[in-house]
Amino acid sequence: MRGQHILGLEHMSVADIERVLNTADEMKKVTKQDIKKLSTLRGKAIVNVFFENSTRTRSSFELAGKYLGADVINIAASTSSVAKGESLRDTLLTVQAMGVDAIVMRHSAEGAAQYATRYVKAVVINAGDGAHEHPTQGLLDLLTIRQHHGSIAGKKVAIVGDILHSRVARSNIWGLLKMGAEVHLGGPKTLIPKEMLDMGVTIHHRVEDAIADADVVNVLRIQLERQKKGLFPTPREYARIFGINDERLKLAKENVLVMHPGPMNRGLEISPDVAYGRFSAIEEQVNNGVAVRMAVLSLTLADGVQA
Amino acid sequence: MRGQHILGLEHMSVADIERVLNTADEMKKVTKQDIKKLSTLRGKAIVNVFFENSTRTRSSFELAGKYLGADVINIAASTSSVAKGESLRDTLLTVQAMGVDAIVMRHSAEGAAQYATRYVKAVVINAGDGAHEHPTQGLLDLLTIRQHHGSIAGKKVAIVGDILHSRVARSNIWGLLKMGAEVHLGGPKTLIPKEMLDMGVTIHHRVEDAIADADVVNVLRIQLERQKKGLFPTPREYARIFGINDERLKLAKENVLVMHPGPMNRGLEISPDVAYGRFSAIEEQVNNGVAVRMAVLSLTLADGVQA
Amino acid sequence: MRGQHILGLEHMSVADIERVLNTADEMKKVTKQDIKKLSTLRGKAIVNVFFENSTRTRSSFELAGKYLGADVINIAASTSSVAKGESLRDTLLTVQAMGVDAIVMRHSAEGAAQYATRYVKAVVINAGDGAHEHPTQGLLDLLTIRQHHGSIAGKKVAIVGDILHSRVARSNIWGLLKMGAEVHLGGPKTLIPKEMLDMGVTIHHRVEDAIADADVVNVLRIQLERQKKGLFPTPREYARIFGINDERLKLAKENVLVMHPGPMNRGLEISPDVAYGRFSAIEEQVNNGVAVRMAVLSLTLADGVQA
Repeated sequence: MRGQHILGLEHMSVADIERVLNTADEMKKVTKQDIKKLSTLRGKAIVNVFFENSTRTRSSFELAGKYLGADVINIAASTSSVAKGESLRDTLLTVQAMGVDAIVMRHSAEGAAQYATRYVKAVVINAGDGAHEHPTQGLLDLLTIRQHHGSIAGKKVAIVGDILHSRVARSNIWGLLKMGAEVHLGGPKTLIPKEMLDMGVTIHHRVEDAIADADVVNVLRIQLERQKKGLFPTPREYARIFGINDERLKLAKENVLVMHPGPMNRGLEISPDVAYGRFSAIEEQVNNGVAVRMAVLSLTLADGVQA
Repeated sequence: MRGQHILGLEHMSVADIERVLNTADEMKKVTKQDIKKLSTLRGKAIVNVFFENSTRTRSSFELAGKYLGADVINIAASTSSVAKGESLRDTLLTVQAMGVDAIVMRHSAEGAAQYATRYVKAVVINAGDGAHEHPTQGLLDLLTIRQHHGSIAGKKVAIVGDILHSRVARSNIWGLLKMGAEVHLGGPKTLIPKEMLDMGVTIHHRVEDAIADADVVNVLRIQLERQKKGLFPTPREYARIFGINDERLKLAKENVLVMHPGPMNRGLEISPDVAYGRFSAIEEQVNNGVAVRMAVLSLTLADGVQA
Repeated sequence: MRGQHILGLEHMSVADIERVLNTADEMKKVTKQDIKKLSTLRGKAIVNVFFENSTRTRSSFELAGKYLGADVINIAASTSSVAKGESLRDTLLTVQAMGVDAIVMRHSAEGAAQYATRYVKAVVINAGDGAHEHPTQGLLDLLTIRQHHGSIAGKKVAIVGDILHSRVARSNIWGLLKMGAEVHLGGPKTLIPKEMLDMGVTIHHRVEDAIADADVVNVLRIQLERQKKGLFPTPREYARIFGINDERLKLAKENVLVMHPGPMNRGLEISPDVAYGRFSAIEEQVNNGVAVRMAVLSLTLADGVQA
């Protein structure tokens, strides 16, 4: 996969997804070592270019790069030339010209990462482009499911919540279907676009139907800041009708895995008892996030795992 | 001290304080070397999580970690998930799950660092929690006194200024008393809580009484932004009645040491002639700050000094 | 040049300029290597102290330092003690006391870098002081011209645009004249101070006259945010009368080199066809920027190129 851009899971091959997950299994051991330091990417430069804030994803990529021995620098759009009216193209050309090997990019516009590949020779890693894709989140969710259930194929995965605004949902759906899972979406009509049926998923507007017999329940953040005013449901109604709590979770399989990409609105889309309960894999997801990012960076910038 | 949290000086043993100071003496040599690089913490990850801005403390910890060979990343609350409503607990669990070895934390709430230890396995270093403690500042002040006067026991230390809002004051008082110093507080009634008498200090409302015959005068910043309106004294009155200037300083011992944790309001709590004068140890404090943080990080994450 | 401050090109000797350019030629190879890592500055600490935002310059210095093996930390004034009213002098003394080897400094006041040298022993690198100088930008522009044309002496260089507010213009003029180039300034009267005639340049208010037969056209950014209201020209008028486009560029020499320090206002001071056209060296400038900063850092902190 050396030199390959990571733009999304829609067009990533099953073989490549498996290669990332297998490499991430190795990398996960590194994140738990006393000395978390490989020399795989020594002398490589990685730039995190974040046009939207995301401490969580940025920190995860920064640590992943550093654990691999790379140099990592951060550019936040709010303090950058972008504030002086520079075009995205010029920002990318500038970063590229500094001699960097990878550009990890978060942007509010769908397709921004794809656009970037037209102008730069560096590897582009999409760290979220609008409501389109967030491939490393999709991969870490796949990794978490595979670790817990042994395989992904044949599993019933419920994705519940604000599907409409969620790049995480789209990356998960593409990845899960590709790996042979059955995907059920659950949430209010206002938050699930009907067109998603074409992706090959089942849509439920009673969240109970979505999570019934599920092997995995992936709860998405309600992005309060993006909801249009006056629309049903209000946060309180949402929690009551759609929130994942211990009671509802009994509908799922006995060994159900609960995931959430964070940051959580506890008491809204997920109750504290579920978030911190025995089915929750939420912290494991964060750890897998570093491992997956190490895998993606080492596979695209070098040739995978090396001591 | 490996694995030990550093939350404050109130409960730190004299033996541990001395171990930090002794290690800091060694580390101080490193900060003055041409090549400031040890491999003590190679492969360790340190995260500075600052819910309040403090360039000075953050930079000091960042350099200390890097001089020791660690990877250091910064998280500023204003740009983090906290802005999206994430709870402190979730932020900590997330940082922890990334595989970090130490969390250096500044927070506006008293007890925040202590709270953090309930949720994370990483070493927690308190870099200031509200008006409660700022232990590495206390330790660097102790180091500065010991270097200058040879010992701390038996010395008369005056702490003057805004004691009420000051975590630096509290950490200094606990540390100084523990090491056998005599502590005198000086300042207006509005800025010294009477309850502090219980700590074992002497309180003076004439600053001249506090600094008379002092071996050390530690001048605290007047935190103008935290003063309630309408209260005596105004800044001008404060400077006139309580400000430390050359004239007043003559009341102290001949070899008095003047300290200030910075940033200074020159002309308010301290006059420029004192701040940059021959008794001032203010720059030495900053250098000692890096040495103390190197000591604390190497003692809690490794086993102290190693080449 | 070890231990030397880099404050501007006005007082830099021709020999030193050539030493920087020659070293930068070597460093440029490093920025294009698969493994961009020297150990020249291992164990050296560099602090970027930016009182004004400049992602471009800060990132360039940060990468340059890291490619050379140094530790680099960033201090942004907006989040620093400066916000608490700390004086420039105290900020500098604090940074110095942390044991750093170089302070890379951007400040809005002319002379700020020079002022800094009065208080710190660390090497001070001026990364822009008001409208005064931006020496590494001047040096990278010289490097770009020398690489393209083989030499600088005798070349006709047109600098067009907002000369008044531009530290880039001043550093370029000093450097170019020193190296034997002929300098022509072009732009509206409101943007070129008459006093600049004293520097030894020719001033034109028809941009066509400035670029006629030019070997180099260096187009400066119109700093819209600094223009006084109501003054001619408006952006639209500026683009029509002074903007550099393909048509106007025909007036220059056939192998003209077009430069711009970025960020560009495309369609204002420069048209897209010129910016991305075959004469443009804009990306090469960015790459040269990293090389020049590596040269400056390695020459002032060590003894130049080392494996």
